[in-house]
Amino acid sequence: MIIDIHGHYTTEPQAVFTFRDKQLAGLADPARRPASAELGLSDEVLLKSVEKQLAFQKERGSDLTIFSPRASGMAHHVGTEAVSLEWTTLSNDLIHRICTLLPHNFVAVGQLPQFPGVSPKNCIPELERIVEKLGFVGVNLNPDPSGGYWTDPPLTDKYWYPIYEALVDLEVPAMIHVSSSCNPNFHATGAHYINADTTAFMQLLQGDLFKDFPKLKFVIPHGGGAVPYHWGRYRGLGMMMKKPPLAEHLLQNVFFDTCVYHYPGIRLLTEVVPVDNILFASEMIGAVQGVDPQTGHYFDDTKRYIDQVAELSEADQNKIFEGNARRVYPRLDAKLKAMAA
Amino acid sequence: MIIDIHGHYTTEPQAVFTFRDKQLAGLADPARRPASAELGLSDEVLLKSVEKQLAFQKERGSDLTIFSPRASGMAHHVGTEAVSLEWTTLSNDLIHRICTLLPHNFVAVGQLPQFPGVSPKNCIPELERIVEKLGFVGVNLNPDPSGGYWTDPPLTDKYWYPIYEALVDLEVPAMIHVSSSCNPNFHATGAHYINADTTAFMQLLQGDLFKDFPKLKFVIPHGGGAVPYHWGRYRGLGMMMKKPPLAEHLLQNVFFDTCVYHYPGIRLLTEVVPVDNILFASEMIGAVQGVDPQTGHYFDDTKRYIDQVAELSEADQNKIFEGNARRVYPRLDAKLKAMAA
Repeated sequence: MIIDIHGHYTTEPQAVFTFRDKQLAGLADPARRPASAELGLSDEVLLKSVEKQLAFQKERGSDLTIFSPRASGMAHHVGTEAVSLEWTTLSNDLIHRICTLLPHNFVAVGQLPQFPGVSPKNCIPELERIVEKLGFVGVNLNPDPSGGYWTDPPLTDKYWYPIYEALVDLEVPAMIHVSSSCNPNFHATGAHYINADTTAFMQLLQGDLFKDFPKLKFVIPHGGGAVPYHWGRYRGLGMMMKKPPLAEHLLQNVFFDTCVYHYPGIRLLTEVVPVDNILFASEMIGAVQGVDPQTGHYFDDTKRYIDQVAELSEADQNKIFEGNARRVYPRLDAKLKAMAA
Repeated sequence: MIIDIHGHYTTEPQAVFTFRDKQLAGLADPARRPASAELGLSDEVLLKSVEKQLAFQKERGSDLTIFSPRASGMAHHVGTEAVSLEWTTLSNDLIHRICTLLPHNFVAVGQLPQFPGVSPKNCIPELERIVEKLGFVGVNLNPDPSGGYWTDPPLTDKYWYPIYEALVDLEVPAMIHVSSSCNPNFHATGAHYINADTTAFMQLLQGDLFKDFPKLKFVIPHGGGAVPYHWGRYRGLGMMMKKPPLAEHLLQNVFFDTCVYHYPGIRLLTEVVPVDNILFASEMIGAVQGVDPQTGHYFDDTKRYIDQVAELSEADQNKIFEGNARRVYPRLDAKLKAMAA
């Protein structure tokens, strides 16, 4: 079984954008607020909206996508906490409907109603709702709800502890994923995403978070940002800070996905990061949608790169494509077992 | 000849720190201001302070280091513009003395008296002084003088154009190098440096800066941050933005150093980035000072990794170790020719 742990709903029907426009217009002119969060989208429209994902799954040979709302769409920095909550609820409900309609193709991961400067504790009710009532298997946690100004505390700060307690209690991992950037210095998918991945890993390296939360699990997307490329730097910095080796200090809790869009990057990732810490992902349909003229294949068809790494045994491949995902997302594993039964 | 293009003066005598303490204490209590910027350091003390660098040059087989003030020490966000200027002048003068004392080992690159929110135009007098009067061959340009809040415009903004005009007129390249971080989210050498490298490259990819400045040259340090590891992402994003291929759009003007502290990273860098765009560097004595237990050698002994890349011909190695540096730093080339004559 091939599980792609990183897919966003990036093919939303127009009604979603129309709602969001009205919602944000309502900040300036309350008369423009949408009358209802009921978008009137039929099951047919939703099924149609993910046809392209289904075609790619078939074409590229993956079975199941862990599916969450558009990452750049979360935009936690926009509006107010109440706007973030309303938008989050609507976004998660859409994911839930799609995953209920196509349970063999999509499993749900949610967004959280974060807002800069507001305690992540306020996200717990929505987290509990999507996991306990709707069967979501994970969440995306935004380490920078300010959208590129990094005004909230680092992930190792006690500020974040309430949400970590809830994640551990519910047995769901968090993917550390920023949203769009309102800082003109940072292109979203070309700088802000990758920087956030690097930053999160370094915060974890500096801290001792997993002493307090030995069961907490984080997935760092986009191949871990710059981290595997600079693996020697991070091993060396850890030594200078008198931390235990990375395997002991972080790698029971921190995992990387394979959203790296060329073979040399994937080969480096699989060479330096232990195979138990790598989860297959493509983030399709996502940041980079074209065909690589050097290969004639889609940049984000990452399964091809993994298949090319001669050093990976079949057992290694099974871990990357399925086993690690079922271990990191125990609720996914339970769901798959229940479906097979 | 082996030229290490990225070395900082990280072994300063205590008098330098004492001056800086007094200078910053003077912000709160003018009575504490240092009486003079004359530190009273003898040539002997300065020579002694770089003994370790000289020993490493010999041991590792490099000949010449392009030497600039401690990067994290620039701290453009601290104090006032006047403080930045005084500190910059003093720091550059020290580099000048060392490079004059040891002209076969060190060639000078300067810092600029940047300050957040202040036009880079104000840096031109110091730039002209160090290049024209003191013979510096390049400068470090900080793309985020705020120290981790990124409040100044992107590098492609016309805000920066006056300094680019001066760099082109003087025929000196800029290394894009941030300083310390006052944002608790960003560890300096583990996150802020690497993020800035990635961010700068992405800004350049989005823009068309080199249409306006075809002769401007930037060196992106630390192996280009995350960029080579995500080379497929950047090639794909460029295509989506309808930019010319990277070779044409950026690689006449943008160069990467080799401060990547393990062999797999250097192998990837040399595999994906054209050899004409790679300049040897180690940033010793810098961010990562220990010995890698996996190899028994210093993490930052980057020459060893390059020597191991079997795919590099002798001609390629010569470019990386010497030829590219002489091309990117024409004033270095002139200096070396004059010394040989």
